Amino acid sequence: MMTSTDRDWTTELRHAVAAGDLARVLSLLREHFDDHELATRLEAVPGPQLRSLLRFIGDDESARLLSRLDAAGAAALLDRLAVSDAADILEVMAPDDAADVIAEIPPSEAAEILIEMEPAEADELRELMEYPPDTAGGRMTPAFVAVDPELRVDETIRALRQVAQTAETINYVYVIDDDGVLLGVLLLRDLVLNPPATRIRDLMVTDVVQVPAMADQEEVAHLLNDLDLLALPVVDDAGRLLGIITADDVADILEEETTEDIERLGGSLPLTVSYLRASPFLLWRRRVVWLLVLFAGAAYTTTVLRLFEEQIEELVVLSFYIPLLIGTGGNVGSQVVTTLVRAMSVEGIGLRDVGRVLLKEMQVGLMLGAVMAAVMFVRAWIGGTGYDIAFVVALAVAVIVVWATLVGAFLPLLLRRLGLDPAVVSAPLITTIVDGTGLLIYFLLARLILDL
Amino acid sequence: MMTSTDRDWTTELRHAVAAGDLARVLSLLREHFDDHELATRLEAVPGPQLRSLLRFIGDDESARLLSRLDAAGAAALLDRLAVSDAADILEVMAPDDAADVIAEIPPSEAAEILIEMEPAEADELRELMEYPPDTAGGRMTPAFVAVDPELRVDETIRALRQVAQTAETINYVYVIDDDGVLLGVLLLRDLVLNPPATRIRDLMVTDVVQVPAMADQEEVAHLLNDLDLLALPVVDDAGRLLGIITADDVADILEEETTEDIERLGGSLPLTVSYLRASPFLLWRRRVVWLLVLFAGAAYTTTVLRLFEEQIEELVVLSFYIPLLIGTGGNVGSQVVTTLVRAMSVEGIGLRDVGRVLLKEMQVGLMLGAVMAAVMFVRAWIGGTGYDIAFVVALAVAVIVVWATLVGAFLPLLLRRLGLDPAVVSAPLITTIVDGTGLLIYFLLARLILDL
Repeated sequence: MMTSTDRDWTTELRHAVAAGDLARVLSLLREHFDDHELATRLEAVPGPQLRSLLRFIGDDESARLLSRLDAAGAAALLDRLAVSDAADILEVMAPDDAADVIAEIPPSEAAEILIEMEPAEADELRELMEYPPDTAGGRMTPAFVAVDPELRVDETIRALRQVAQTAETINYVYVIDDDGVLLGVLLLRDLVLNPPATRIRDLMVTDVVQVPAMADQEEVAHLLNDLDLLALPVVDDAGRLLGIITADDVADILEEETTEDIERLGGSLPLTVSYLRASPFLLWRRRVVWLLVLFAGAAYTTTVLRLFEEQIEELVVLSFYIPLLIGTGGNVGSQVVTTLVRAMSVEGIGLRDVGRVLLKEMQVGLMLGAVMAAVMFVRAWIGGTGYDIAFVVALAVAVIVVWATLVGAFLPLLLRRLGLDPAVVSAPLITTIVDGTGLLIYFLLARLILDL
Repeated sequence: MMTSTDRDWTTELRHAVAAGDLARVLSLLREHFDDHELATRLEAVPGPQLRSLLRFIGDDESARLLSRLDAAGAAALLDRLAVSDAADILEVMAPDDAADVIAEIPPSEAAEILIEMEPAEADELRELMEYPPDTAGGRMTPAFVAVDPELRVDETIRALRQVAQTAETINYVYVIDDDGVLLGVLLLRDLVLNPPATRIRDLMVTDVVQVPAMADQEEVAHLLNDLDLLALPVVDDAGRLLGIITADDVADILEEETTEDIERLGGSLPLTVSYLRASPFLLWRRRVVWLLVLFAGAAYTTTVLRLFEEQIEELVVLSFYIPLLIGTGGNVGSQVVTTLVRAMSVEGIGLRDVGRVLLKEMQVGLMLGAVMAAVMFVRAWIGGTGYDIAFVVALAVAVIVVWATLVGAFLPLLLRRLGLDPAVVSAPLITTIVDGTGLLIYFLLARLILDL
């Protein structure tokens, strides 16, 4: 929705663009958008203007804006610049971010850009790109501070002055030997609070928590988080310090992993790119797989109903309650599955808790079943269905609710036990499972009680 | 599942407990459990043993273990200790954590514990407890470092030595005037890297990002995260520095908020306590509300079907496809809603993007609809349903899929526009909406095409 003030400034913006007054364009944009929005909008700027705009704001500012986008978005922008401009911007980005961006650029163009960069920085990027993006190695930055154990405190502080500008963090000073093997770590505060002549070797903590370069990023994030550290060192098989993962990466990693969990719970394969950037075809591919699996799984509902063809023909009213009964079962299953899958990820619940979880859910299921049976009876009664059928649907909903609760509680625990991701038991999957079995429960009860 | 080694060490554990050998008990537990598991298991330890065990490991270690639990869990444990023991443990906990725990203890007992504590620490806690737990004030810690602007660098470093042990972070040194008003901030690295005689006033950054005490915790977390800071100062209306929020709180805050989103998406009210600690009655309450709302919403499916009673009586086979058709519609709706709600939270998608989102989803829906129609036709055909009915169900599934996609994409955007949480459009809600409308689509198509 556009207000009159919106129109005023966009008119002004158009004029500034027409006049080529980049300074005015930029200050207008800055006034109305935050960095993230600004960066997103850069994508819509045509090639020549984009090149002038980024040159105007300079490499540092361009790098800062680009780092607000995800790697694919930043790569798409850089891809539209001259190779040398792209190289200049990547040089000033944090090496771990730059490596993520480069990985999204087509290999032949990426190689060209790397050639244009300063050799030292290009080598750093090539090394980072050796590790998959969801590992510690793929996430780490080589911008750490490391010193020799034989240095004194005052010498170390002097050394820090040299690197303070380029290091990602100087809160931790790592200690390495001549081969680069990690020996220990000390806190910046230890440097500040100790006499100048103290040897680093005597100050450092040798029992350093460290992660191998191939460690899963999610585990590293949880570790950093649980230990309340600001950074974790990443080492190779020989114990050599390769880089560090800093606390500000944790939120990004957890956000990525949580998004994947949520998408799985909703019954899609994880997108891996942002929604706005995903093409319709990609969205289709991510959804159609599970839709087909669920369809195949649900196809037997037709078979179940065909089994009871005679009963339905005799009492068509029975079919009226099918959507309500299986819908309620699906809703209960979905509630249990989402709550439990999240609890498994956050609280570390596993198959060893199965007794406790099932006992608790059984109680919840019975209470929910009782309420839903009462409501269903009233609904059927005022619908004029007659006492006997009202009784059948009420009993059916109670049994289906308890059944859905138990299946929803047991399946994710079983999947974890089998080494699978429990989030695979999505709301749609549990709904599908409960649909067919719920129908069976319903019509068996009907046949038994109504003597059909 | 217990292996034989499991049995060995539990036998040993039982013996150690029987012999009252606490040191051995503790070392056995430490060997087999991490801190979080250990803390969780403390809840099962009977009162007298719990008291001896915590006294044995000491206040610092007890506080560390308790901080691994959520506030309600830690409160339940403290509640079983002597008041003076509880007070001692709370004194050594980080003040922000301690305040959260105290808030979970019944008020009369909390007052007793506060009286037993050192007056200074008790006052700190009382102040923290004034703010709701989901605000900056409720999350902050008063353990910051603040100095006078007239101090010199060397004097400041000397002052830091005094407080380094109790401060939550000394990475940021805040500068306040005599009234406690925040004037500026400097980094620990600025102290290290500047000449000893420099005045703090000349070093400090005066343009400090700060948040009011009543700011929402989620906004503060995103701000900290976006700015890649290690801590944010929290101020009152007069600009006085009250406390700081540190980066290690961000992951906790985001985890809390994400859990709420996921539970809503699954169709429950947020639990607010951990799953394992939630009583069956609480779980029931959180679920029954939405179940009843959804039941009321779905009740009209019976009415829709009653409208088509004649058609069903004439062609019972039509009823066989009800679960499969509405199930597929619900699955598609659930996929769209979960992906979009998450994208709205992470990417900031809003109603202004509605055109773009609907256009994209329309394309995805058409592609999905085409595939599902083909599969449905084959399924009906090999089920021996006859060409005309197979055509009806195939067409119906295509229309329902497109319809579910559009409803699932539009509703969350509309809710955000109305100022409601888009996560209220849960997978169960969209399924319920699509169920009834899907039936209408199906039977209208059947009546039209089959000329019933």
